[in-house]
Parts: sequence; structure tokens; C-alpha cells
Amino acid sequence: MIGLTIEEMELGQSASFTKTITEKDVYLFAGISGDLNPAHVNESFAKETIFKERVAHGILCGSLISTVFGMHLPGPGSIYLKQEFKFLAPVRFEDTLTATCSVKEKIVERNRVIFNCKVTNQDGIAVIEGEAVIMPPKRN
Amino acid sequence: MIGLTIEEMELGQSASFTKTITEKDVYLFAGISGDLNPAHVNESFAKETIFKERVAHGILCGSLISTVFGMHLPGPGSIYLKQEFKFLAPVRFEDTLTATCSVKEKIVERNRVIFNCKVTNQDGIAVIEGEAVIMPPKRN
Amino acid sequence: MIGLTIEEMELGQSASFTKTITEKDVYLFAGISGDLNPAHVNESFAKETIFKERVAHGILCGSLISTVFGMHLPGPGSIYLKQEFKFLAPVRFEDTLTATCSVKEKIVERNRVIFNCKVTNQDGIAVIEGEAVIMPPKRN
Amino acid sequence: MIGLTIEEMELGQSASFTKTITEKDVYLFAGISGDLNPAHVNESFAKETIFKERVAHGILCGSLISTVFGMHLPGPGSIYLKQEFKFLAPVRFEDTLTATCSVKEKIVERNRVIFNCKVTNQDGIAVIEGEAVIMPPKRN
Repeated sequence: MIGLTIEEMELGQSASFTKTITEKDVYLFAGISGDLNPAHVNESFAKETIFKERVAHGILCGSLISTVFGMHLPGPGSIYLKQEFKFLAPVRFEDTLTATCSVKEKIVERNRVIFNCKVTNQDGIAVIEGEAVIMPPKRN
Repeated sequence: MIGLTIEEMELGQSASFTKTITEKDVYLFAGISGDLNPAHVNESFAKETIFKERVAHGILCGSLISTVFGMHLPGPGSIYLKQEFKFLAPVRFEDTLTATCSVKEKIVERNRVIFNCKVTNQDGIAVIEGEAVIMPPKRN
Repeated sequence: MIGLTIEEMELGQSASFTKTITEKDVYLFAGISGDLNPAHVNESFAKETIFKERVAHGILCGSLISTVFGMHLPGPGSIYLKQEFKFLAPVRFEDTLTATCSVKEKIVERNRVIFNCKVTNQDGIAVIEGEAVIMPPKRN
Repeated sequence: MIGLTIEEMELGQSASFTKTITEKDVYLFAGISGDLNPAHVNESFAKETIFKERVAHGILCGSLISTVFGMHLPGPGSIYLKQEFKFLAPVRFEDTLTATCSVKEKIVERNRVIFNCKVTNQDGIAVIEGEAVIMPPKRN
């Protein structure tokens, strides 16, 4: 059940997670975060914005990156130390997002791995980019 | 319904949002993000980790910062450009978190505001810190 | 699948619905209503109130009355015209509420039924009272 | 974090909250209230009703009024004493509702404020009207 240790990961190794973001995801996320910003939950307001319709929360979309770390690479036992999100483009309801994380650097003596992270939509447009720092699990 | 413009904000101005993070928040967030990392949803696994129990997702806790931006400062009409999260301490179920964002720098000619962001728990311990960049709304 | 018509109901006839109100109900209701009032979702704040802990939203508790009308008496096909809620006592997480509605008056020529409504907790304390007006279904 | 006291509110003062009501809101509300009336969750049944499609629960729509009180006017620290809902028109999925509450009367000696409440849809049609009684917070 334990994910990969720093020794078991290679530079450039990557993993992905894909999900279609629905109105339901956005509404649930609004509820748990408390972020009922009209850009996300008020269609009348959103029509007048530059996006012309309700869009997903940036942090919700970025959370797919966390899924890659916690579930796939390195996987269970990882500790999340740092995440940077640059929000590059809006995400609309029913967009299918793919979060991809790839090993950029290993700092073995401190057990830290730096990842390049990207979230793209179904058209290949990058909607989020940014680095993360993870402490991978150790074998007992 | 529009939030504050860059001219209407002052250096050091801040706003906060507080919420008790529950098991339900964590489970809903797990479902919408897809991050069912055992550290969050598997008590048997979590007991063997350094945290000794299930903890909340870092991104879920960071989402309270997004709530401050979208709802309070600058408020509706803001565009989220960048967020950095440094995860400093675990968040346990039933911890009461307060996200606070304060204006660090205004770049008026590009309509960008840089914020210092912090999330603290009920004991005043910082669990997340990091900067954000927001494009505040403009008056028509 | 159609509920009772006005002719099929008698004065004093009543029906009930019982549910234990959980933290999860309160948090979901906060999300869908947008009511993240700290009395409901911030334990640190709530400790300082006269209720000493987080309490359920009044409207959430009142919604159990709507359940009686839509599901039991008169049941499907009813149209909800009016509801009055007097909030009499706080509802705490894990309280078991029983909503009871009883026929107070039938206005046959206008097809309106007036109900006495009450929500009580597991200790028999009335937490909500109020009248409602329902237009029951008609047989084709 | 405390809302407005009775002295800080003026006759006619108002606040609003707007949200697009989605199928997801209706289904979550059905689950937490227990009101799975076919008018809300059974499209085959709903097609045969005068509304011709599933509609939102009246109490769900009314809950946006509670959001105004708990979050905006008077805000945190308020105690909800009474609410009357007159359901005037159906609310369809994806309707954008605006709840507005305005101070109708102040009873300073008993610390009670009576509000006029209204919920309108994106076409300006009133879907709910009714009075409420609130006990606003006091400063320590």
C-alpha cells in the first residue's frame, strides 16, 4: 500500500489522472470550501464576465494534481510540502481535465522530490501549471 | 455585486474566512478530487503514519484562501492568477481553520495584487502559508 | 403514486417523518444554501455563543415538514402554497427530529388544506411550530 | 465577525444573495431532507404535472433567505425566530434566484427586526415572498 520511495523514482517519470469536471463537482466544492463566488454559482452574473458562463474553481481543478501524488506517484505515504498553481485558462463545466506530474529533481539527502505539474483540458490547452515538492514514503 | 478594485485596496488590508473542517468535508473532497489517498480515508493506514490518524487534504484546507478572494477581498469579479501553498502542519478532523489574506503589493499598471496568505488552526498554528496573485475587478 | 385528495383527508389526521440530523446534513445544507454562518460551521465561534456549539440551520430542520407533505400527507401531487416556521429551540448535531403535520382545516371549494406543523426532538421538546397551506392533488 | 446590531440597521436597508439552482442542489436537498417527492426527482411523473418538468423544493429556494440573514444582514450572531414563505411560482432547474431581505420594522426594546423577504428568478418573477423575525447580535 506504500507508494514509491525516492530511490524508486526516475527523473522524467510521470503519472496522470483524468476527470470530467461537472456542475456537481463545482457545487459540492463551493459548499465545502465556502467559495460561492458568483463566477461559479450564478449564471446571470457569469454571463456578463469575460468567460460568458460559470467556470470551475481553480483550486478544484488543481486538486487533480494532489490526486496524482496521493494515489499514483509517489502514492500513499507521501507528504505534500509545497504546491504552486499558475491558473492559465478557464475551466468550463464538462471539460475533461488531465493532471500530469513528472519528476523534475530528486534531493535524495533530504528525501524531497520536485515535480513539474500540469493540468490540460480535452483540447490540450494547459489550464494550470506549477511545481510541487513532495516527501516520498520510506520503506520500513 | 462587484468586489474591490485595485484602487480601493490598501497595503496591509486583510480579510478572513473560518470553518471547522469535518470528516464530511474530507470525504466529499476525496470524491470530487479523486484523491482517496489512505492518509485521508483509511483509518487503519493512517494510524501507522506519523500523523497517527486521518488528516485533511492540504488542497482542501488551502481552498479556504480561495474563498477569501472570491467572496471578500477583492470579492466577485476577481481573477485568480497564481497561488502558492506551503503545507506546514497536518490538519485533523474537527480543526477550525482561519484563512487570512492580506495585500502585500499592488502593481497598478498591470492590475495585479500580490497577497500574503495564511491558514491557521484553532491553536494559532500556521498550517499553510504562501503568496497569491489576483487580478481584481474593474468598474465599468 | 398520487397522494390523498382533500376528500380523502380528515380533520386531525396526521403523518410524521423522523430523521437524526448529522454534521453531514448541516455541512451539505450549508453548501447548497450558501449559508456558511459560523454558528453552523465554525466550532470556535459557536463555543462563544449562547448555544455553546454548532447548531443546525433552522430551515434544514423545517425541511422535514416539507418531507411529510411531499411523501406522506397529502403526498405526491401536492402543491405547497405557504409555510410558517417559528424557531423555538436550537437543534444540535445528532438530535433526532420528528416532523408532524396534522389537518387543521379543509377549504374544499378552493382545494386548500391548512396544517398544524411541529418538529420535536428526541426529548419531546418542540423546536419548530407553524402552519402550512397545501393544495392536495386531484384524481383525474 | 459579528454582524450588525439593531442600532446599526436602518429601515429599508437590504441585502441579497444570488445562486443558480441546479439539479445537483435539488438532489442533495432531497437526500438531506428526505423529501423525494416525485415532483422533484421523477421526471416521468413531473412531465404529467402542471409544471411539466421537475421543479426545485420550495424550502430549498427559501433557504437562500436564511443565507442573507446568516451571512450578510444582520450576519453572524443573529438568531432566527420566525420565517414565513409564500410559494408563488415554480423554480426550474438552472433558474438563477436572488433572495433579498429588507428591514421592515425595528422593535428595539425587544431586540427584534422584522424583514420583508423576497426571492425572484432571472426574469424578475417573485417565486417566494414572506416576512421574517430576527434577533440581531449585540456587541459585548
